[in-house]
Amino acid sequence: MSSTKSFAAQSADSPLAPWTIDRRNPKPHDVQIGILYCGVCHSDLHTARNEWGNTVYPCVPGHEIVGKVTAIGDQVTKFKVGDLAGIGCLVDSCRECDNCKEGLEQYCSNGMVGTYNGKEKDGSGNTYGGYSKSINAHEDFVLHVSDQLPLEGVAPLLCAGITTYSPLRHWKVGKGTKVAVLGLGGLGHMGVKLAASMGAEVTMLSHSPSKAADAKRLGAAHFVLTSDAAQVKACAGTFDFILDTVSADHDYNFYLGMLRTNGVMVCVGAPPSPAQIPAFNLIFGRRSVAGSLIGGLPETQEMLDYCAEHQIVSDVEVIAMKDINEAYERMLKGDVRYRFVIDMATL
Amino acid sequence: MSSTKSFAAQSADSPLAPWTIDRRNPKPHDVQIGILYCGVCHSDLHTARNEWGNTVYPCVPGHEIVGKVTAIGDQVTKFKVGDLAGIGCLVDSCRECDNCKEGLEQYCSNGMVGTYNGKEKDGSGNTYGGYSKSINAHEDFVLHVSDQLPLEGVAPLLCAGITTYSPLRHWKVGKGTKVAVLGLGGLGHMGVKLAASMGAEVTMLSHSPSKAADAKRLGAAHFVLTSDAAQVKACAGTFDFILDTVSADHDYNFYLGMLRTNGVMVCVGAPPSPAQIPAFNLIFGRRSVAGSLIGGLPETQEMLDYCAEHQIVSDVEVIAMKDINEAYERMLKGDVRYRFVIDMATL
Repeated sequence: MSSTKSFAAQSADSPLAPWTIDRRNPKPHDVQIGILYCGVCHSDLHTARNEWGNTVYPCVPGHEIVGKVTAIGDQVTKFKVGDLAGIGCLVDSCRECDNCKEGLEQYCSNGMVGTYNGKEKDGSGNTYGGYSKSINAHEDFVLHVSDQLPLEGVAPLLCAGITTYSPLRHWKVGKGTKVAVLGLGGLGHMGVKLAASMGAEVTMLSHSPSKAADAKRLGAAHFVLTSDAAQVKACAGTFDFILDTVSADHDYNFYLGMLRTNGVMVCVGAPPSPAQIPAFNLIFGRRSVAGSLIGGLPETQEMLDYCAEHQIVSDVEVIAMKDINEAYERMLKGDVRYRFVIDMATL
Repeated sequence: MSSTKSFAAQSADSPLAPWTIDRRNPKPHDVQIGILYCGVCHSDLHTARNEWGNTVYPCVPGHEIVGKVTAIGDQVTKFKVGDLAGIGCLVDSCRECDNCKEGLEQYCSNGMVGTYNGKEKDGSGNTYGGYSKSINAHEDFVLHVSDQLPLEGVAPLLCAGITTYSPLRHWKVGKGTKVAVLGLGGLGHMGVKLAASMGAEVTMLSHSPSKAADAKRLGAAHFVLTSDAAQVKACAGTFDFILDTVSADHDYNFYLGMLRTNGVMVCVGAPPSPAQIPAFNLIFGRRSVAGSLIGGLPETQEMLDYCAEHQIVSDVEVIAMKDINEAYERMLKGDVRYRFVIDMATL
């Protein structure tokens, strides 16, 4: 075991603070990563504060991890010491169910193992995430990271990137697709960039006029102010696909009416209250509401390669580890464009 | 104009009773059908009693119409006098929007014209449906009916048949698909027959054990009693497609949990209360909830031809016109296996 510096929440109401964890020595198939940057996802805050009711303490959040390989197990074939590498939201799965066999480990029928607050399959306890100096994982759950992109901008691709890339690919968004993105935050800004890069005609839907310039800079062709009835009316029945990244409660029906026949609205945010949807709003226009969860390992690698090829990274604000609690408060106010990333050298 | 015997509701709380309507003389593209049978759909009752709040009285319901062509306009090319013919839920649409051009007239962007309680595009007023001796419609909205099937069993195909056929086709149900059908009524029994005929492995979901034998007779491979926790648990994550035909309030989440990864639940019934769906129930498993409305004219003809080829008709109880009010009451109690059809010779 090796003592590893980290930042942890010790309870739902204590701020994150320095703590030392024991990381296992690399197992035969393990890749050990010295963490350089770790993105700050809303899930980190939800989990640190036990807002989903399932947090095991101490809790070390962080699942947008990039760094350099510092050691490998003796059976590792995919990585060597010195390689750039990343870890996203999961570090293990059963590998045996239909979903795992298809590379959809995020939907593992026996339960994937989250990068933090997960339960190790070998019974060794709770997983600790990327707010730490290093991490180990089986090489099958480690991603190759390009050296052609700024690493701090790559980190958020491991969650915010794949969460938006996966549904865009699954529902075949591309040239000729009219896409609306709802919510311009960590997920939404990646959704705009990625959908635009795929050739879609992207509209940003927002109630905040201040987002208009940024939306266009990120690649949106249009900006619709959702508080403007005339603009909203003009959108009725126009989108093939709505990527809904909002995790606050909102009226799905307001947006369903903007879908064309056969249109799909995909939710990647999880509001606290259930969506309330009259069946007629789906029946007229053969509309769908769907959900999507991050991505599997093959698709996450595909996304990283795609982003390297298209020079796509996240817009980030780099912070020091000690400033994480303040960053959480700013994140709650939406005061970040568009992702905090911790420089792990500051730990 | 020709005086035509019909049965009509004169107000939301008056029973249906004999009434005489004026049918237009056939216009150049009109086909006039002498109605032999008309199916009784739940929508008839909803509309007769103004339960959707939009009924124009007097109201002559009926949109599952089969009969014989008795006259044609001088520019009709698709039908001749004596042909068997049918009319379903719509008798006109704008023909100019994208949906109409694609043969998805049911989703006409400018509003389709319902077979009853619709507003004629030429300003001539309200449409009257199939509870009458004859009806006219533009030949493009009239279907060819096979002489190889019992006509009374064909009538419900025009609504119950196409409403279930269309989503099964759209979501590519076939050999290897695990389909569950929810609700064994007019729609559900067609859903079971059609899905089974397409090669799917069909499971009937019902809270009524008395439906088990019938479900299997109709083609279901399995019957799951939804009040039996063990049976329900065994269904978790097993279906590719759920056809939800229930129009009473029910908990969608109970069934969403039965979907596999990428599974789709399609609602063709419209319960009075909105569905309440936590986003996580869609996000985990990339599940979708969708709706579907009848079918367009090309697909309705395809369905009729398919049913003729596969010898599929609706299970019906033929009634006399005068018994329609009693039939409505029995329909409300689910006391029909599985569709009432009016023998129009009794009018």
